[in-house]
Amino acid sequence: AVKTARHKHNASPALSSGASNSGESSKESSRCSTPLLDADRSDRLREKMRKRMESGDPWFSLEFFPPRTASGAVNLISRFDRMGSGGPLFIDITWHPAGDPGSNKETSSMMIASTAVNYCGLESVLHLTCSNQSQETITGYLTKAKQLGLKNIMALRGDPLGTDWEDEEEGFNYATDLVKHIRSEFDDYFDICVAGYPTGHPEAQSYAEDLQHLKEKVDAGADFIITQLFFRADTFLKFLRDCRAIGITVPILPGVFPIQGYQSLRQLVKLSKLEVPEEIMEVIEPIKDNDAAIRSYGIHQAVEMCRVLLDSGAVPGLHFYTLNREVATTEVLRQLGLWIEDPRRPLPWATSANPKRKVEDVRPIFWASRPKSYIYRTQDWDDFPNGRWGNSSSPAFGELNDYYLFYLKSKSSKDALLKMWGEELTSETSVFEVFTSYITAQVNRGGHKVMCLPWNDDALATETNLLKDELEKVNRRGVLTINSQPNINGKPSSDPIAGWGPAGGYVFQKAYLEFFTSSENVTALLKVLKKYEPRVNYHIVNVQGHNMTNAQDMQPNAVTWGIFPGREIVQPTVVDPVSFMYWKDEAFALWIEQWAKLYEDESPSRMIIKYIHDNYFLVNLVDNDFPLDSCLWQVLDDMFELLDAVFYFERPNQATFSYLFVFYVFLKDDSEEMLFR
Amino acid sequence: AVKTARHKHNASPALSSGASNSGESSKESSRCSTPLLDADRSDRLREKMRKRMESGDPWFSLEFFPPRTASGAVNLISRFDRMGSGGPLFIDITWHPAGDPGSNKETSSMMIASTAVNYCGLESVLHLTCSNQSQETITGYLTKAKQLGLKNIMALRGDPLGTDWEDEEEGFNYATDLVKHIRSEFDDYFDICVAGYPTGHPEAQSYAEDLQHLKEKVDAGADFIITQLFFRADTFLKFLRDCRAIGITVPILPGVFPIQGYQSLRQLVKLSKLEVPEEIMEVIEPIKDNDAAIRSYGIHQAVEMCRVLLDSGAVPGLHFYTLNREVATTEVLRQLGLWIEDPRRPLPWATSANPKRKVEDVRPIFWASRPKSYIYRTQDWDDFPNGRWGNSSSPAFGELNDYYLFYLKSKSSKDALLKMWGEELTSETSVFEVFTSYITAQVNRGGHKVMCLPWNDDALATETNLLKDELEKVNRRGVLTINSQPNINGKPSSDPIAGWGPAGGYVFQKAYLEFFTSSENVTALLKVLKKYEPRVNYHIVNVQGHNMTNAQDMQPNAVTWGIFPGREIVQPTVVDPVSFMYWKDEAFALWIEQWAKLYEDESPSRMIIKYIHDNYFLVNLVDNDFPLDSCLWQVLDDMFELLDAVFYFERPNQATFSYLFVFYVFLKDDSEEMLFR
Repeated sequence: AVKTARHKHNASPALSSGASNSGESSKESSRCSTPLLDADRSDRLREKMRKRMESGDPWFSLEFFPPRTASGAVNLISRFDRMGSGGPLFIDITWHPAGDPGSNKETSSMMIASTAVNYCGLESVLHLTCSNQSQETITGYLTKAKQLGLKNIMALRGDPLGTDWEDEEEGFNYATDLVKHIRSEFDDYFDICVAGYPTGHPEAQSYAEDLQHLKEKVDAGADFIITQLFFRADTFLKFLRDCRAIGITVPILPGVFPIQGYQSLRQLVKLSKLEVPEEIMEVIEPIKDNDAAIRSYGIHQAVEMCRVLLDSGAVPGLHFYTLNREVATTEVLRQLGLWIEDPRRPLPWATSANPKRKVEDVRPIFWASRPKSYIYRTQDWDDFPNGRWGNSSSPAFGELNDYYLFYLKSKSSKDALLKMWGEELTSETSVFEVFTSYITAQVNRGGHKVMCLPWNDDALATETNLLKDELEKVNRRGVLTINSQPNINGKPSSDPIAGWGPAGGYVFQKAYLEFFTSSENVTALLKVLKKYEPRVNYHIVNVQGHNMTNAQDMQPNAVTWGIFPGREIVQPTVVDPVSFMYWKDEAFALWIEQWAKLYEDESPSRMIIKYIHDNYFLVNLVDNDFPLDSCLWQVLDDMFELLDAVFYFERPNQATFSYLFVFYVFLKDDSEEMLFR
Repeated sequence: AVKTARHKHNASPALSSGASNSGESSKESSRCSTPLLDADRSDRLREKMRKRMESGDPWFSLEFFPPRTASGAVNLISRFDRMGSGGPLFIDITWHPAGDPGSNKETSSMMIASTAVNYCGLESVLHLTCSNQSQETITGYLTKAKQLGLKNIMALRGDPLGTDWEDEEEGFNYATDLVKHIRSEFDDYFDICVAGYPTGHPEAQSYAEDLQHLKEKVDAGADFIITQLFFRADTFLKFLRDCRAIGITVPILPGVFPIQGYQSLRQLVKLSKLEVPEEIMEVIEPIKDNDAAIRSYGIHQAVEMCRVLLDSGAVPGLHFYTLNREVATTEVLRQLGLWIEDPRRPLPWATSANPKRKVEDVRPIFWASRPKSYIYRTQDWDDFPNGRWGNSSSPAFGELNDYYLFYLKSKSSKDALLKMWGEELTSETSVFEVFTSYITAQVNRGGHKVMCLPWNDDALATETNLLKDELEKVNRRGVLTINSQPNINGKPSSDPIAGWGPAGGYVFQKAYLEFFTSSENVTALLKVLKKYEPRVNYHIVNVQGHNMTNAQDMQPNAVTWGIFPGREIVQPTVVDPVSFMYWKDEAFALWIEQWAKLYEDESPSRMIIKYIHDNYFLVNLVDNDFPLDSCLWQVLDDMFELLDAVFYFERPNQATFSYLFVFYVFLKDDSEEMLFR
């Protein structure tokens, strides 16, 4: 489902999900590489809604509830990435007082919403219920939400503790109180959503009284309304008319619930005290044991209802109760034509929705497949470098303790990883084979496909086939590639593969290749690279930090840029020598943390990975001559040729011995110095 | 002599003279568009010398004396621009205590050196003599020099006031005292040069004693030595050996004096108490009345001597006593192969040599033909915007009182200007004809070639012929062009016409056109431009500041940029909406200040220019689609077509009358609103 747009090693979902911001993304800075992609205030959810309504462009939004387990969280976040790529205007995360929703647990509402904003780049609304909560507790939650970069709150009363409801003097009695509290304590910082009940709140004395309560919530400062679910378009449209009649003018979004199963429908109906219309029950009852049939009917029913809603011209967007499921909602959206199949990206990488990162306009290419790690390691930055990470004002990268963070956990189990990466490794060649299987998407010796690597938690994008043959060839010989991009010489910004940024522009790339390889290979490579000066820039480093580069004055090299109508140049990706040293730590550590630790201590398999970790070099290469075909494959061919010559002459005979000697001198003369200067 | 490298309306000498910095220019900033083009300390003259010596790349430098009159100053500054384009490592300006050398007069040594640095972008050395000066006076001169951006001082004793020399207790007795004073008061800020006497100082007791005095000057902190002139290579080479023998290790530059005339030689010899060798006098005496023959001999003699010096391998650079003349020195340098015919430019515009402007990396395109005006109006800036001029931190542009500044004076007299621009104007068409003659380089009705316009003090560059036909056509019809550049889609940075920046890169441009035109034309143009959205960006403004643009959020548009190996993107020229308003004031004022004021008050000629000034609009157009052929000519063709239709239908007949009516409505409906919104 994910359409990646670059020849990266994986179809990083986050890369695509950034698209959810497309057309909405707001960039602001006084710096050259950060053109104001949009005006300042357009960043607010209510402003985004206003613009979409003005242009008659209906949106959709998606509701999720927090998961129960850590692995459920990992899956949900993958779902955010995938569903985010369809272009929701926002998602919202429900709040369950019994589930410790404001804690730092990886499964809390607060943390899930924060992850959606910060790591998935999704505009998010955090639910918050106020009943039985002190003002201090609520203020604490809101303060924390603000600190985490959350900007929108769905203000709800929540259920009473007991069966009877008693007004509290000090606390909150109604959602209106919560709306007032948010506005009085946080001024206009948050955009506030409130709930509407198309058939009246179950506890309300009358439909009319409930409408008045809704008006009070809006008058107290709510910016828009999402309704409880309903089963007939008429129900909503009448409610909408009634709201407008009493002077409610804010956007009102219908809550759509695609029926996904008999049990879930019954449970929801019970909880919400709604009645399912006769005509629906008549269809469902006969097929209640046929899940597929019910789901299919649910999709059909939702699509029909949504079409009526949209055709009314009175509905600016649709809100979906997903129940954390993907298929039904996605299918409804596809049939409605609201799912964005090829979303435009404001930048080549997924922008974060945290307002603090609004000015972020450039990232090192190294984290292209691990954007969440980059965001995590730079989360404490108050300022973002605009190209170079070397000056004293740049803050340090966060510590390398993020392998354990739930949103960086592999989606695969230890067992699955062992099947992919080998139950038992016998030599470095076993490792080469793992990389090669990953690149070719063919099964390994054990008959398993290698779907991920420690540096790429997703399968190689099918779009990467352009580079596949070359990548396979070099990986087979121990050039273990973990990141690459082809050169691009001015493709339209609308290009489905390479495009990003505003319409009418042109995007460019320099060819990039990053890999681990042995010190023998590096020695030969350094010889070869002399021929490619100054066309090819390189950085070569081992785990100890011994560093070789031909970058002048440690300057960064722009490797992705775009030219747009009426704008300054945008330069979102660089190869930066300083941040490479921080990436190096992470890239090497992944060998141990994600791979070696799969095996017993002291086991041969573990020792092999440890050997590679200790002895290999991490290499990145940039071909600066972007208008020409990339020379990086030729560089590696030359390196192999040089190595082949050594190999050939290691079986000496009279005729070749002296040549071998010359070659040996040639290869070794300054290698010590070159490797460890 | 000037090689301009862009299709600007004039071959702005300053544009070319920037090249004098090529290979030496140092750029430093933490900002994206200011890649560190060189390491920090390379900016110092002594560092530049060190690098050139390391790479075995001999340089030359040029000595000038301050002019006597303001018009002499204008001419000298033109000479700086022209001779600067040959690539001197530095120039130096002599100091004559009797000539008020430290004053603010446009002819003072201080002001001439400042102009060379700030406006011509030349590394400059200011001479300073100390005899009969108080420490306070000297400190005052040095403080002023530093404030003006001067970085190098030639420390000299100067001549005694009377014929006898008496040591002063409080003041300076020797150049050594001045060197010590500079180091004690200004630490390491200045690079210091001192004078060496290959045949010994005329007042020195002995050659050996004089050498010791020189060593004292160096030990006191001098960075390099320039010698008094001499006539035999051996004289210098012996002096050099003697200096090295007593431990003088700094660079020693031979002072070369190409003999340019009999009288000047005699005078110089008298002043410097030098003896002209017999073999030279024998050649010169017989031809002493033949200036051309003497000059020719002088060139020959200097070339021969310089060849010996360079071939010795002991001479890192040659210093020329130009006597403010151009031909002889240039010819010697050409014959020696030291004159840089096609200097590489670090940026498309002339960089200033003032250290304060070292971080300047982008300029609005509007001042392309008036770089000195731009530098003047931004001279008080402590910080330079990096693309946009709109944010609050940007300082204001200086006032429009610079028409009278000597370095912005036209090189042509009022009489010459009247001949070019018309003794008497009869209509706007007369003005169109002036522009057209300028573009075509053909004589006007009066038989005179139009060599300059108020916005371009130089003739149209011959290289502009590519655009000449189009420019002629539109100027003839009242589209009065004052600035333009063609689109460029990735030419090598070494391209002799379009290239700039480090080797191995690619440069790009968006097509740009700027012109004055009538409000009728603007009304039609605005209609036409709707067809070209968003491909063409425009800014249209009249003298009152009524402004029409389709620039989003007043964002600047990058129109010149370069991609280089191992660097960030460089974006040195933008069309910026904010600074356009400052340029507008200047561009309109030039009609009055430079043109209208040639004519009597209330005269018809003056009224015509005044009418244009009051009623025309200044228009700039950018074609964003740089990979395609420029559409700007087509835009103007469409405008003319629309205007022709009006003209045609202004002779109505039955068949066309209704069509005319429709067209009239079409043309006029919203023009008021469009013109003055």
